[in-house]
Amino acid sequence: ESGGLQEVKRTINIGLAPAEVAHLIESSPPKVRKMLWELVETENEGEILQHLSDEISADFLNEMSTEQLVDLTSELDTDDVVDLLQQLPEKQSNDVLRGMDSENRSRLEAVLCYPEDSAGGLMNTDTVTVRADVTLDVVLRYLRRHRSLPEMTDNLLVINRNNEFIGILPINKLLVSDLNQTVREVMTTDTQIIHASLDEEDVAKIFERHDLVSAPVIDNHGKLIGRITIDDVVDVIRDTADHSMMSMAGLDEEEDTFAPAFKTGRRRAVWLGINLITAFIASAVIGLFSDTIERLVALAVLMPIVASMGGIAGSQVLTLVIRGQALGHISSGNIGWLLNRELAVGFFNGLLWAAVIGGITLFWFNDALLAGIIAAAIIINLVVAVLSGAALPIILKRQSIDPALAGGVILTTITDVVGFFSFLGLASILYL
Amino acid sequence: ESGGLQEVKRTINIGLAPAEVAHLIESSPPKVRKMLWELVETENEGEILQHLSDEISADFLNEMSTEQLVDLTSELDTDDVVDLLQQLPEKQSNDVLRGMDSENRSRLEAVLCYPEDSAGGLMNTDTVTVRADVTLDVVLRYLRRHRSLPEMTDNLLVINRNNEFIGILPINKLLVSDLNQTVREVMTTDTQIIHASLDEEDVAKIFERHDLVSAPVIDNHGKLIGRITIDDVVDVIRDTADHSMMSMAGLDEEEDTFAPAFKTGRRRAVWLGINLITAFIASAVIGLFSDTIERLVALAVLMPIVASMGGIAGSQVLTLVIRGQALGHISSGNIGWLLNRELAVGFFNGLLWAAVIGGITLFWFNDALLAGIIAAAIIINLVVAVLSGAALPIILKRQSIDPALAGGVILTTITDVVGFFSFLGLASILYL
Repeated sequence: ESGGLQEVKRTINIGLAPAEVAHLIESSPPKVRKMLWELVETENEGEILQHLSDEISADFLNEMSTEQLVDLTSELDTDDVVDLLQQLPEKQSNDVLRGMDSENRSRLEAVLCYPEDSAGGLMNTDTVTVRADVTLDVVLRYLRRHRSLPEMTDNLLVINRNNEFIGILPINKLLVSDLNQTVREVMTTDTQIIHASLDEEDVAKIFERHDLVSAPVIDNHGKLIGRITIDDVVDVIRDTADHSMMSMAGLDEEEDTFAPAFKTGRRRAVWLGINLITAFIASAVIGLFSDTIERLVALAVLMPIVASMGGIAGSQVLTLVIRGQALGHISSGNIGWLLNRELAVGFFNGLLWAAVIGGITLFWFNDALLAGIIAAAIIINLVVAVLSGAALPIILKRQSIDPALAGGVILTTITDVVGFFSFLGLASILYL
Repeated sequence: ESGGLQEVKRTINIGLAPAEVAHLIESSPPKVRKMLWELVETENEGEILQHLSDEISADFLNEMSTEQLVDLTSELDTDDVVDLLQQLPEKQSNDVLRGMDSENRSRLEAVLCYPEDSAGGLMNTDTVTVRADVTLDVVLRYLRRHRSLPEMTDNLLVINRNNEFIGILPINKLLVSDLNQTVREVMTTDTQIIHASLDEEDVAKIFERHDLVSAPVIDNHGKLIGRITIDDVVDVIRDTADHSMMSMAGLDEEEDTFAPAFKTGRRRAVWLGINLITAFIASAVIGLFSDTIERLVALAVLMPIVASMGGIAGSQVLTLVIRGQALGHISSGNIGWLLNRELAVGFFNGLLWAAVIGGITLFWFNDALLAGIIAAAIIINLVVAVLSGAALPIILKRQSIDPALAGGVILTTITDVVGFFSFLGLASILYL
C-alpha cells in the first residue's frame, strides 16, 4: 500500500512534466486532487500551480502560509508570479511582496501596475538586450557569458542608452551574418512592438497574424519594459475561444469540469433563474390567447414548433456573428451587408419551412386555415429571428455587454414571444 | 478615382502584412473580396492565400490556371503548398504536381501521403540537421554558410547516418556552451518527438503542455521527416476551440461570416430540417394529451416552462462535458463521479426551481394540484436533463459521433419529450 503511494509520488515528481501533473489534477474529483497535491514536492509546486486553472490553484494557494508562498515564487517567471499573486486576497499578496528581496519585488511591481488582461500583465521581464553600435562578434561573446538564455529567446532586443527600444536582432540572423557587422547594420526595425496597455486579445491577434514567437513590450515613453512569449499567448487564445462557447451556456471559461456539486449547482441555478424569466414571459403571451386555445387545442400542439424553429434559426446567426466578432471580422462597414444577407436567408428558409410545416399540418389536422396560419407564423418568426440574431451581438457589444452571455437569453425571449404571438394572434383573428 | 485605386493597391501589396490583407478580404462581402483579390500582385498571392479560410481560398484557387498555381506554390513552405493542393480537385492537384520540378515534387509527396489532420499533414520539411560527433564550433561555421535559417528554428535536429532522429541541440544552448564540446555532449535526448501519424489535436496538446516552439516529426522507422512549428499549431488550437461552439449551432468551424445568402441559407436549412423532426416529436407528445389540455388550458400556458428549463439545464452540462472532452479531462475513470455529481446538482436545482415555479403557479392560477404537478415535472425533467447532458457526449464519442454536432439535437428531444410527457401525463392522471 505504502509502496504504491511511493510509486505515485515518484511519478508525480520525476516522471511527469509539470503540465502533465496539472492535467492529472484537473481531471480528478476534488478529494483525489487534494491527495495528489500533497504528494507534490515543494520545489515542483510553483511550476505545477501555473498550469492549473485559476479556480483550482486558488484553492491550493489559500492553504499555504506567507513563507511558503514567498519560497514558491522565488523560482518562477515574473508573469507567473503575478498570476499567482492576483489569485490571493490583497492583504496576503502584499505580505508575500514584502517577504521578497528588493530586486524581485521591484521587478514584480513593474508588472503588477498593469491590468491582468493587458499586455503589461502578460509580459515577462527576462529580456536579453544589446546596444546597436557593437559588432555581432561582441554580441556572441556577451551571450556566451550567460549560463543560459531565457526560454523562447528568438530575438535579442536592441535599446539605446535611455533604455528606449529601437529594434530586434533575430538570433537566426545573428547566426548567419558576418560577425564584423554591427548590430545596427543587421537589426530589424519594422517589427511588431506591443504597448503595455494593449488588450491581451489584441496581443493574440498580432501574434497570430505575424507568426511571432516573442515580442517586445514598451511603456508610454517608448522604454523597453519586457517581452511577451507565444506560450502565454496560446493560453489567451484558448481562453478567448472557450469564452464564447461557455458564456452562451452561462458558464465561465475557467469553469472547473470537476467542481463540487454545491459550487457548480449554485452557479448554474443563477442561469436557470435568468432563463425562467424568459420562460414566464413566453407563458404570459400564451396566456393572452387561452380562450382561442380552448376552442382549438391543435394550437397548443403546434405552437412549440413555431417558437423552436425561430430559436434554432436565430441562434445559428447569433453564433456566427459572435464568432465573427471574436475574429475581428465585424465592423460598422459591413453590418448593413450582413443584415441584408440575413433578411434574404430568413425569407428563403422561412418560405421553405413554411411550405413543409404547412403541408404536414394540413395532412395531420386536415385544416387548410390552420396550415396557412402556421406557415405565415413560421415566415414571420424566422425573419425576425435571423435579423435579431445578427443585430443583437452588435447592439450588445456597443453597450459593452458580453454578447455571448446575454445574447442567447434575449434572443430566446424574442423568438418565443414573436413565435407564440404571431401564431396564436393570427389564429385568434382568423378563427373569430 | 483611379488614383484612389492605386492607393489601395499600394496599401495591399506593400503596406499590409499578408495576414492583414487576408483579414481584410475575410471581413468583406463577396463582391468586394473579388475586387481586392484582383489588386493583389502575383508574388503576394501565395502568402495571402495561406492566411485565408479554406472556403474563400478555394474560390480564388478554382479560377487560376495550372501554370499560375505552379508559380504560386514555388515560393511557399511545404505544409502551405499541401494545404493549397488539398483544396483543389484531384485532377488539377495532380496537374500542379506534374508541373513542379522533381525536387519540390518529391518533398511534397512525402507530406501528401499523410492525412491532412495528422502531424504528417501539419509538418514542414525545412529541418536543419547536424551530426552528433562534430563540435559546436563546426556547427556554428556550418550555420554561417546558410544565407538564412528557416523561420522558428529554435532547435537543430541531431540525426545519425541513417537519418534517424537522436536528439535536439537548442540554439539557445549552442550560444552559451563551450565551443570545443561535441554536439553529443550538449544535446538533449529526452525531448518531445512527434510521430507522423499522431492526430493534430494531440500535437496541439503536446505543444501546449510543454511550451514548444517547434518539434521534430519522425516516421514509423524513427527517421526524421520534418518538423512542426507553433504557428501552425496555433491554427489547430483556434479551429479546435471554434469547432465545438460552431458545431453546436450546426455550423462548420471554417464557416465564412460573409458567405453569400444562398450558400449559407442552404446549409442552415439542413440544420433547421433536423431540428424540425425534434419539434414534431414534441408536438406528437403534446397531441397525446390534447383532451386534457382542452379541459384545463392552463396546461398549455405552463408546459413550455417545463420543457425549456430542462433544455437550459441540460445544455449547460452538455457544454461543460464537451469542453472537458476537448481539453482531455474526461476519462472512463471519472465518468462515474461526474454522473453522481450531476445527479446531486439535478436534485438541488430541481427542488429549488420546483419550489419557485410551483409558488408562482399557485399564485397565478390559484390551483394547488396544478402547482404540485408542475413542481414534480420540473424535478423529473431537470434530473433527466443533467444526467443526459453528462452522459450523451460520452456515449456519442464512443460511437465516434461528434457530440458537439449531435448532442444538442438529441438532448432537446429528450428534454422536450420528458418535460411535456411528465407534466401533461401527471395532469391527465391526477385530474381524471
